[in-house]
Amino acid sequence: MTALRCTAIHAPTPDAIEVLDDVRIVLDEVGTIVSIEPASGIDEASAPSDVVVGPDRVLVPGMVDTHVHAPQWPQLGTGLDLPLERWLFEYTFPLEARFADTGYARSVWDQMVPALLAHGTTAAVYYGSRHVEATTALAEACVGHGQRALVGRVAMDHPDGTPEWYRDESPTASVDDSARSIDDIEAMADPLGLVEPIITPRFTPACTDAALAGLGQLAELSGARVQTHCSESDWEHGHALDRYGMTDAHALDRFGLIRPHTVLAHATHLDDADRSLLASAGAGVAHCPLSNVYFANRPFAARASLGAGVAVGLGTDIAGGPSPSVLAQCGHAVVASQRLADEGDRDARLDLVTAFHLATAGGADLAGLPVGRFVPGAAFDAIAISLDAIGVDPDLDDWSRRFDKLVHRAGPAAFTDVWVAGRRVAGTDHQH
Amino acid sequence: MTALRCTAIHAPTPDAIEVLDDVRIVLDEVGTIVSIEPASGIDEASAPSDVVVGPDRVLVPGMVDTHVHAPQWPQLGTGLDLPLERWLFEYTFPLEARFADTGYARSVWDQMVPALLAHGTTAAVYYGSRHVEATTALAEACVGHGQRALVGRVAMDHPDGTPEWYRDESPTASVDDSARSIDDIEAMADPLGLVEPIITPRFTPACTDAALAGLGQLAELSGARVQTHCSESDWEHGHALDRYGMTDAHALDRFGLIRPHTVLAHATHLDDADRSLLASAGAGVAHCPLSNVYFANRPFAARASLGAGVAVGLGTDIAGGPSPSVLAQCGHAVVASQRLADEGDRDARLDLVTAFHLATAGGADLAGLPVGRFVPGAAFDAIAISLDAIGVDPDLDDWSRRFDKLVHRAGPAAFTDVWVAGRRVAGTDHQH
Repeated sequence: MTALRCTAIHAPTPDAIEVLDDVRIVLDEVGTIVSIEPASGIDEASAPSDVVVGPDRVLVPGMVDTHVHAPQWPQLGTGLDLPLERWLFEYTFPLEARFADTGYARSVWDQMVPALLAHGTTAAVYYGSRHVEATTALAEACVGHGQRALVGRVAMDHPDGTPEWYRDESPTASVDDSARSIDDIEAMADPLGLVEPIITPRFTPACTDAALAGLGQLAELSGARVQTHCSESDWEHGHALDRYGMTDAHALDRFGLIRPHTVLAHATHLDDADRSLLASAGAGVAHCPLSNVYFANRPFAARASLGAGVAVGLGTDIAGGPSPSVLAQCGHAVVASQRLADEGDRDARLDLVTAFHLATAGGADLAGLPVGRFVPGAAFDAIAISLDAIGVDPDLDDWSRRFDKLVHRAGPAAFTDVWVAGRRVAGTDHQH
Repeated sequence: MTALRCTAIHAPTPDAIEVLDDVRIVLDEVGTIVSIEPASGIDEASAPSDVVVGPDRVLVPGMVDTHVHAPQWPQLGTGLDLPLERWLFEYTFPLEARFADTGYARSVWDQMVPALLAHGTTAAVYYGSRHVEATTALAEACVGHGQRALVGRVAMDHPDGTPEWYRDESPTASVDDSARSIDDIEAMADPLGLVEPIITPRFTPACTDAALAGLGQLAELSGARVQTHCSESDWEHGHALDRYGMTDAHALDRFGLIRPHTVLAHATHLDDADRSLLASAGAGVAHCPLSNVYFANRPFAARASLGAGVAVGLGTDIAGGPSPSVLAQCGHAVVASQRLADEGDRDARLDLVTAFHLATAGGADLAGLPVGRFVPGAAFDAIAISLDAIGVDPDLDDWSRRFDKLVHRAGPAAFTDVWVAGRRVAGTDHQH
């Protein structure tokens, strides 16, 4: 596809949606937007668009899931009855350990990646397992199915924070395997440039100081981005205070892990100094509002972080959250913020526009991905949504109401087309 | 259908699920379950089941939505940015007033009822509009599309709590129109006995004392059930205290409206005396956890009410809540209860089994409907769910995990068949 005529809606800033009513979007050969112009001024006869999306549909940017544990896909929706530490040791680590079998891993990735694309997740920031081969296979699956992704081998070597049967052999092995994973992913054939590696220490309780320091050095040397968890629960927050005498965010910074586009999952216990640290470093938070209900003891204060200049995206936290849908997290983010507002912080409330911004442009900015807005220079990752499928009445519903309905009501059944880098990768419309 | 072979799962009590593994369910001519027996002991050759549901699917009871505002369907998912009172006057009453046009009403019902059936809502407790004709048309649509329902004309006559252009003419007219609506619905042809009327004062702020007293007398004379809202928000709670010097529940009781199977929506501000009143009367609460986020200022304390013997069901509160799915309310009910637990009431947490019980048997018991469990004597209202569509791995997932996945992950795309009174009324399986 090189030229598409459509109506599109996006939230380039946290404060407002913008409707691009009947525009023509021109792409280059790798799916980057070259121009967006009113279609009314273009002579379709002499230069026809090769895709025309009718007025019964609207495009939105593809969803950016900033926090996905890929090997937890088989347990999505189960086992949310335990506190975080027990959940890891009793359910999660045993499942992730199975990914030593790369064939099993491939079978899971080949279910998961298409399922997430069908949910409109055109870009994902993945934790793999601790296995280099399974993680490379995940990157290959993303390229194969056409999903944009950052893919990280999980580093985890601490004898107290990991079980003997699912642990890197040593701090050196932990860093070396992470470096090898970066090399393997960077060596892959990937003509559209969809996939990049990301350095992924699981979280401080699972990593030795030596591994954390080595991974910080690896980030500096390789230039690869970093992701990890940060002060998710009372337990993790207290762990950092006990071990380092400082907050988790500051401890991670001491190891050189708070860098531009570092993605910190959850971060529900940030204080003002943490927010300043993240904002000045260009790092930010993968806000996983539904997961937080089960594991974080409190909601993440999204408004306070945005106000402090911290980058914020949304994440499903598959499978710490039971839903695979980033769009659904918009509603959950509003619910979480309303709780903070009801508890006394009247400025805490997010509206749906801001939540949608976080699910698209916000997540892209956080992770340093060239998506999330319909602007020249951005990659064309998008979803076409059937207005009929979300109950839009053209007489009753202006664009503001159509927007509300699409955020609250759209899902895979309403997604007629999903594109990544201009390639159609999912959708219900079998005519294409 | 008179005999069906399947595996089914239900939650006959709040505390446990029961798996009916490979059973034969026999129905009578109006869809009531006559017997449930292990299929292994039955000779299929001599007495074949006319429907056989394979091991790749599981049946659950149909969902009971105990709180739906039918005329708000066109605004589902929109306009949740205002407090309750302004939301009513600025968005909701103008929309409901359109249902004076019975043709418009029919067009909405013919979209909504099939959509709710596709979401697995086999039984709904409906508020119509204040129009007798539109409300009767809703009852007709339920019979026509095969949905079980209680259908109530909304009584609202108070000059302060309603706008001049959407108000019953007088207390007498309010009671007379309600009586006429009962007569019209009871006179309908309805061979399966799917639909019954329900007396529906909107809520105390919208009704005069004379109307409330008259509707209480009408309930006593007609035997029809009652529904209304009760202490939903700070505003409504304060209104009753100011007007009556007592809680909303006790004020409603003074008018004879707290009766067996009275369905009180929201009730987020109940105190211990209210709970005792409801429990002894056999009345209960339509718990609408997602709606409460937007309009109630606080979650309903479901556990405390269950512990006091109050009947509790789940409701979407279409369109005070943006989701049409009762199954989705199970997750929202857990989220709401977790908030109460995080705020200090450690006993407040609902687990998924209890939430599912409320969505099925609990709602049925509250509303006095003969559904919600797979037992002889119950009507066969059920949903068949594709295990593949909810990501079940037969090797990995025992029944407990399959149950978790079906509650968290199932939706219309996974519902292969939906039956009401033994008749197939919706579902994705086009082979049937």
